[in-house]
Amino acid sequence: VRFASDNRPGVAPEVLDAITDEAARFGDAYDEGELPRRLDAALSELFEHETYAFPVLTGTAANSISLAALCDPWGAVLCSPFAHVLIDECGAPEFFGGGLRLVPLPGPLTTLDLAEIQAIIDGSATYDVHHMALQALTVTNLDELGGAIRPDRMAALGEVAKERGLALHLDGARFANAVAATGASPAELTWRAGVEIMSFGGTKNGALMAEAVVVFDRARAERIARLRKRSGHLFSKMRFVTVQLLAQLRDGRWLDRAAHANAMARRLADGLGVRPPDGNELFVTISSATSATWSAEGVEFYDTPLTGTETRIARLVTTWATTPEDVDEFVRIAHEQTPGGWEKS
Amino acid sequence: VRFASDNRPGVAPEVLDAITDEAARFGDAYDEGELPRRLDAALSELFEHETYAFPVLTGTAANSISLAALCDPWGAVLCSPFAHVLIDECGAPEFFGGGLRLVPLPGPLTTLDLAEIQAIIDGSATYDVHHMALQALTVTNLDELGGAIRPDRMAALGEVAKERGLALHLDGARFANAVAATGASPAELTWRAGVEIMSFGGTKNGALMAEAVVVFDRARAERIARLRKRSGHLFSKMRFVTVQLLAQLRDGRWLDRAAHANAMARRLADGLGVRPPDGNELFVTISSATSATWSAEGVEFYDTPLTGTETRIARLVTTWATTPEDVDEFVRIAHEQTPGGWEKS
Amino acid sequence: VRFASDNRPGVAPEVLDAITDEAARFGDAYDEGELPRRLDAALSELFEHETYAFPVLTGTAANSISLAALCDPWGAVLCSPFAHVLIDECGAPEFFGGGLRLVPLPGPLTTLDLAEIQAIIDGSATYDVHHMALQALTVTNLDELGGAIRPDRMAALGEVAKERGLALHLDGARFANAVAATGASPAELTWRAGVEIMSFGGTKNGALMAEAVVVFDRARAERIARLRKRSGHLFSKMRFVTVQLLAQLRDGRWLDRAAHANAMARRLADGLGVRPPDGNELFVTISSATSATWSAEGVEFYDTPLTGTETRIARLVTTWATTPEDVDEFVRIAHEQTPGGWEKS
Amino acid sequence: VRFASDNRPGVAPEVLDAITDEAARFGDAYDEGELPRRLDAALSELFEHETYAFPVLTGTAANSISLAALCDPWGAVLCSPFAHVLIDECGAPEFFGGGLRLVPLPGPLTTLDLAEIQAIIDGSATYDVHHMALQALTVTNLDELGGAIRPDRMAALGEVAKERGLALHLDGARFANAVAATGASPAELTWRAGVEIMSFGGTKNGALMAEAVVVFDRARAERIARLRKRSGHLFSKMRFVTVQLLAQLRDGRWLDRAAHANAMARRLADGLGVRPPDGNELFVTISSATSATWSAEGVEFYDTPLTGTETRIARLVTTWATTPEDVDEFVRIAHEQTPGGWEKS
Repeated sequence: VRFASDNRPGVAPEVLDAITDEAARFGDAYDEGELPRRLDAALSELFEHETYAFPVLTGTAANSISLAALCDPWGAVLCSPFAHVLIDECGAPEFFGGGLRLVPLPGPLTTLDLAEIQAIIDGSATYDVHHMALQALTVTNLDELGGAIRPDRMAALGEVAKERGLALHLDGARFANAVAATGASPAELTWRAGVEIMSFGGTKNGALMAEAVVVFDRARAERIARLRKRSGHLFSKMRFVTVQLLAQLRDGRWLDRAAHANAMARRLADGLGVRPPDGNELFVTISSATSATWSAEGVEFYDTPLTGTETRIARLVTTWATTPEDVDEFVRIAHEQTPGGWEKS
Repeated sequence: VRFASDNRPGVAPEVLDAITDEAARFGDAYDEGELPRRLDAALSELFEHETYAFPVLTGTAANSISLAALCDPWGAVLCSPFAHVLIDECGAPEFFGGGLRLVPLPGPLTTLDLAEIQAIIDGSATYDVHHMALQALTVTNLDELGGAIRPDRMAALGEVAKERGLALHLDGARFANAVAATGASPAELTWRAGVEIMSFGGTKNGALMAEAVVVFDRARAERIARLRKRSGHLFSKMRFVTVQLLAQLRDGRWLDRAAHANAMARRLADGLGVRPPDGNELFVTISSATSATWSAEGVEFYDTPLTGTETRIARLVTTWATTPEDVDEFVRIAHEQTPGGWEKS
Repeated sequence: VRFASDNRPGVAPEVLDAITDEAARFGDAYDEGELPRRLDAALSELFEHETYAFPVLTGTAANSISLAALCDPWGAVLCSPFAHVLIDECGAPEFFGGGLRLVPLPGPLTTLDLAEIQAIIDGSATYDVHHMALQALTVTNLDELGGAIRPDRMAALGEVAKERGLALHLDGARFANAVAATGASPAELTWRAGVEIMSFGGTKNGALMAEAVVVFDRARAERIARLRKRSGHLFSKMRFVTVQLLAQLRDGRWLDRAAHANAMARRLADGLGVRPPDGNELFVTISSATSATWSAEGVEFYDTPLTGTETRIARLVTTWATTPEDVDEFVRIAHEQTPGGWEKS
Repeated sequence: VRFASDNRPGVAPEVLDAITDEAARFGDAYDEGELPRRLDAALSELFEHETYAFPVLTGTAANSISLAALCDPWGAVLCSPFAHVLIDECGAPEFFGGGLRLVPLPGPLTTLDLAEIQAIIDGSATYDVHHMALQALTVTNLDELGGAIRPDRMAALGEVAKERGLALHLDGARFANAVAATGASPAELTWRAGVEIMSFGGTKNGALMAEAVVVFDRARAERIARLRKRSGHLFSKMRFVTVQLLAQLRDGRWLDRAAHANAMARRLADGLGVRPPDGNELFVTISSATSATWSAEGVEFYDTPLTGTETRIARLVTTWATTPEDVDEFVRIAHEQTPGGWEKS
């Protein structure tokens, strides 16, 4: 049973159908013609605001183009100490941004005390030429520990950013799961809270490959378009990315897929008797023995040792493709093979 | 009828089948597991040499990563004055390469006098710190005017490069068409001629999205892998790119597809009574009136005015998806609607 | 006798005096306090316009910061095929500019047909995302062949740039010689002609080390200040650069020094019976034998072979430190040792 | 009385004399001729090892070129949380290094537990393509709090770096003060301890402008030379920098100057009754009232508030130009005007 990552399943049927339809057709090259306009229209409706999408081919690109569009090369970006852009992208933001800097805060943006964030900004904000200029704050929703940021928290972060003159970026690789988890509208979690630019994720939610840089102000278009082209993310058959996003957005399928993944994670938590997660990622404290047994039983998952202990933190990710049977099978394995092998809450 | 570009058709059936198969499966993330090894094995057999492939998502990325892997930021790359890397990639090589420079030669690499190339290299090669260091030569095959470079010419260019200490890069966006056109082996057109790194194109030959940086020496792997990740071209579902390339390589389908496209271009030339092209691009000199008529008749193609004249150069591109009926329909239109409207040879 | 370069003499007395005075003093660090304001005031008076100077430590830095301040990383800069920024700075503009591109015109900006420049701009100006964006034109005065550009030509170049939306940059490493040669005002040769940013050279005119990025619009200050700091050109004892520039500007000494250098070059031309140059660089066509004899006689100069001939082009540079005796000694050597060994005009 | 910074005094007489001598002379351009060889020889003797110096114009450049020479763009550099490269250079290392990253350790390298450094390296060292590659460790001596690092500590840091495959860089802006403070040989504090590249500071020690990138292995020369030229730090009258460094090194003047500055700081500490510093920087805890009084009395110094208190940390810097009378005058002011206004130790 597979709980390693939401980039492991294949492609959701509605997306594959859209690709298959398009595959039989001649069409426009690059990001031209009718399809981009249809995507912008669909997103504008979803976000209840004029919205412009720049499809790209990976989340790394979406995040890095976004930050490079917001910052000068001498700009600094505040982020969570666990942010994907900081840890898992081999310095892509620095590369796209001409040597900008990511500055980790002392804790996750989901829970860090707002006054502490303000104090850090104020302390860094000696805006003279010897120091990098704080220019942006990047937030991830779902966050890096699987938590959903709710509209009031987003608005509060947006307020801090705005007061201090920082642009607010949202890494939305799992934005669909966050919307499903919070019941908030996409607008509440983005532009209404002050988000100027976001990475809108499709790949983890069933697309073959579909991410987009999304902005709410046309004035940002030129820089994004240039950054996208120069980094090789203006795909000649871009219509194949656009139709995936359109297929996901049609009739709310993107949200259904994410809601399903979230429900599977809750089912998993129920089965294990642990606190249910907001989204589709469940973190469980297990013993090394449990870890070994689960792996031996064919459970696919990642875990990380807690330094200096025999304890490990397992991450179990559910997806649009996870079935109740998958969950139940795993729960059975856990109870039968590793009773008492994880921490209940 | 459609002759605008080989990035306009959809996806060849064997590629779509491979995607569809993979779509139903969980698999490895990024570029891990069995599939990359199978791709390297398939290419090693094709090239008759140990070969390592780094799939990427666009030709822009393939070319730019290749040049950045070969050069220092203070390196200069000789290229054709019509090279795609020079003209059509918005400076992507400069971006990936930290500010390297492309230096256009006075004519196409396919036909430019070798002694002239040598003289230019010798003239530039004042290797002191005030001048950029000539470090690479990039060649495109099919070239930018649709011509195929034959093994003896490639070998001669490789010889010039080697004597002067330049690395040789091949932009193979239409490499399949070049192999089909020349009847040469992939080896003869690459490493045997001194090519150290190439962009191996799949997208124009029927893939949805599949390009690869291909090298013949494992020592180059680390830089390429880093450049690929940092530029956002390490796709989390990379197996979907790999299976496309594998599907194209299986049973020589990649070559059949290209041979078909080339044959359609020759049929087009025959029908128009002009000199047949090497590959799948036919350039025809037409009048402005002809251009207008063809467009009015629904022919999709690009043309460029010859400065200061009423004459235009039309580019007609055939593809794996072009049918003999498409060609014949176009030929009929040309003869019936624009008799005498193009230059015969 | 020394005619190799104007970076070979030492330091003019007024500059050395200023350094010596300042050396005995404590002062402000970096670019603060009273001195920068005095420099801006002196230049504002000189240029008859509000003027802001950013002293830097080399001409390479002045030019590269200027171009990077004008252009995006995807910007292209038109230049002379002989431009110092293109040939002699190891790609520094590309480095400072995040991968911008220098595009050589087919001839020197001093003499190239304006209509040809316009046509080239119009031909390149397919302002779509696949192509780099033409954003600036850089001109050198004195130019690379020692010629002075007169106000009407500067204005014409500025007009072309403005019509096409390009910013105009002036490399003024020998701006003093150009002002002295033309008798024009600094204003006529710069902002009145449309120059937005210039490199104002002091080092070749007697300074120890003093160059400045000069702008006529305060809105450009932030980018320049950041680029200067990040590239290591915000010197902690910057006041020692500022006092050099102030010493040069005082009582028109900068212009006297340049006028002297120019006069020495004319004296040289007279002595040799060749056409007098505009500024302080005399190019003379000589035989290889002449070249060898001059060197043997201790004349310091550079020459370049004309490819495929026994003829060479000698560059003889006069400076603020060149004496009439130096010139006469050289003329004597030439006439006595190499009669008929150079081309008269 | 002036204790604000060691970049505030003018130029030491031996340095000014050297400049004045050279100012009267024609000489070689850039970094050529006899002088660079003499500098390398002088440094080789000083360091008891083959040594190659690349004079540059600022410490920002020296440090940034050094780190860029050691690292790939995807490299990370461990540093102190107070490192000048991290805090005060506006991201210059990121710029020179094509987007490398500085990673602050949890405490100063002078005192941080070695096992903690090792653990952090081991924890970061998941050397896969998703993470930046730890490639260097940078140490400052004198450190950022004025402390001298002794040979055994340097050797221990070098050992950690070597075991983990990191290159060791030394920021030696106040290296002379560190040598004077420790009584160690330059060799012990550099290559014998594993330092591969260092910034050798002259400007704070009495030079007008003289810093150098210093390496102990000729193989590093090419990259450094290219980075220096491309960043505009290959000064056309470089001989004026070289003669400053030669003047400082002659007869141990560089060390005498630093020893004097250190002695003045000890005298200051004695006068105030606080613990004497290693080098030329004294940090004293004062009240806000004391700070205001000292300023009012004309004492030039910097201080920083301790967040949330009325207490401030004053930094008093002595220099080659500080006299015993300056110190005594300040001590008198302190005792008379602000009795009990600072913390004794």
